[in-house]
Amino acid sequence: MLPEAIRWNGNSIEILDQRKLPDVVEYINCTNVELLANAIETLAVRGAPAIGIAAAWGVVLAFKQGESVKLSIERLRVTRPTAVNLFWALDRMASASDYEQEARRIQSEDVENNRKIGAYGEKYLPKESVVITHCNAGALATGGWGTALGIVRSAREAGKNVKIFACETRPLFQGARLTAWELEQDGFDVTLICDNMAAYLMSKRKIDAVIVGADRIAANGDTANKIGTYSLAVNANAHGIPFIVAAPRSTFDLSIPNGSAIPIEERSESEIRRLPGGQTVPIRIKAWNPAFDVTPFELISAIITEDGEYEPK
Amino acid sequence: MLPEAIRWNGNSIEILDQRKLPDVVEYINCTNVELLANAIETLAVRGAPAIGIAAAWGVVLAFKQGESVKLSIERLRVTRPTAVNLFWALDRMASASDYEQEARRIQSEDVENNRKIGAYGEKYLPKESVVITHCNAGALATGGWGTALGIVRSAREAGKNVKIFACETRPLFQGARLTAWELEQDGFDVTLICDNMAAYLMSKRKIDAVIVGADRIAANGDTANKIGTYSLAVNANAHGIPFIVAAPRSTFDLSIPNGSAIPIEERSESEIRRLPGGQTVPIRIKAWNPAFDVTPFELISAIITEDGEYEPK
Repeated sequence: MLPEAIRWNGNSIEILDQRKLPDVVEYINCTNVELLANAIETLAVRGAPAIGIAAAWGVVLAFKQGESVKLSIERLRVTRPTAVNLFWALDRMASASDYEQEARRIQSEDVENNRKIGAYGEKYLPKESVVITHCNAGALATGGWGTALGIVRSAREAGKNVKIFACETRPLFQGARLTAWELEQDGFDVTLICDNMAAYLMSKRKIDAVIVGADRIAANGDTANKIGTYSLAVNANAHGIPFIVAAPRSTFDLSIPNGSAIPIEERSESEIRRLPGGQTVPIRIKAWNPAFDVTPFELISAIITEDGEYEPK
Repeated sequence: MLPEAIRWNGNSIEILDQRKLPDVVEYINCTNVELLANAIETLAVRGAPAIGIAAAWGVVLAFKQGESVKLSIERLRVTRPTAVNLFWALDRMASASDYEQEARRIQSEDVENNRKIGAYGEKYLPKESVVITHCNAGALATGGWGTALGIVRSAREAGKNVKIFACETRPLFQGARLTAWELEQDGFDVTLICDNMAAYLMSKRKIDAVIVGADRIAANGDTANKIGTYSLAVNANAHGIPFIVAAPRSTFDLSIPNGSAIPIEERSESEIRRLPGGQTVPIRIKAWNPAFDVTPFELISAIITEDGEYEPK
């Protein structure tokens, strides 16, 4: 069963409150643009494509209520700085003649695009595959189907057997709370790991691909995505594992030559200092919990003991 | 002020309960070997050298109480599988003639060794340094002073200014709960990060060294340490940053040719599924919380969009 992140009910926008998942499946009813902007800012809805779709419906809502479309677009533009799909969707809405039709198109095209991404991407996966993913680039982050998780779904449709390791994604646990839950609901074999375990996992068993989504892609291909993606990419490359980014073309920002110009949102320190407590995933979801890992000597500059320095290399 | 992890009071072993730090500073009074074994198993005391010291005092306790020294050693040997210092300390105790003197020596020699490690290791750090560390290899993990953190302390004694980024160390947050607290108590400039942020930090600012402790070092230098260490090592190497292991010689296990033979403890899945809640560090401790990072195109095998695959490389 695929969760629906955003629903337009004719009068207001229903947003699946992703802050409460997986414990509670509850929709917030956004009856005005400020409530929607708030839902985006506080991550009730998140994921680059989903943010764009939600913002598009926000413009419809403003128009229906006789509010200024221009001011609504301005308000929605300042909700999150990094994902470029937000600005792309708002730009489309700004030049649309029929707002409702345009929002509906943005949403349905996103699902179609996810399906195409899935069809292209699943070719990277062998019949029996093991994939590592980070954060949530699934149905919850899109109009449905998903980008990174769309590839996994399309591979299953093509008759392949895909096992997924979901990195929990500190500090907000989107990998645990959203991806592990979304995949488990959809009948996949998913195992939760802490972010710092992915490299050790790559060294211990065959991983066919690391697949992630994207929040903004510069003209040269440099890709901004959830914190921790870069570490996975370095590690995937060190282990000779394909590192695959799955994203609609609306994620590209050709005005930016490379990644150094992508604005990176810095969030509150309290997200790291304070833990929400309780279950991040239901106890029926598998987890892998090695307490230690092994670092090969080639990677160690010096081992310093009371007798002096050894240089294993 | 240096915390004291283990105190022998003449009749029993007082163990600083590291499960309750930093909220509560409280000692458990281990009045028999079973209570001590339990304290080791449940991580009230942890850190390879500290486990060895605690176990040594356990043998003293058994002897004083007229219990079988041999059975006590057998019991303590099965508390944790990975750290070799435990077995090294118990072997020393098994062949000692004066148990109390031997335990006292194991503890005081550990502090002396930490000082020597600090003196050797601090030479790797420039006058103004930025260091990343993982888990806790500090006073809390040793007889005092610390191994990885001992280097940082010795650098300060030598007049250097060291700023430390502490990786929080999922799943049990020893970096947040222990290292950030220990360094802050000791007047250091410490900033907490999530484990998955270290690679991005390396790409954004000059890091002088990654310094970690060790639980067991094979004959060839392969090093077992807290999960997440390997990921840091791969990333440090990719960024040309010295990756330094600080450990007493008792951490070497020359009977093991390489890391593949080191037994890795697998712990309960619930440590990942369930969060303790509340503060992991007091709000006065700094944290750095970028929500995204940038992955350079060279590391990306393919970007898959609805139009097909791009290969940025």
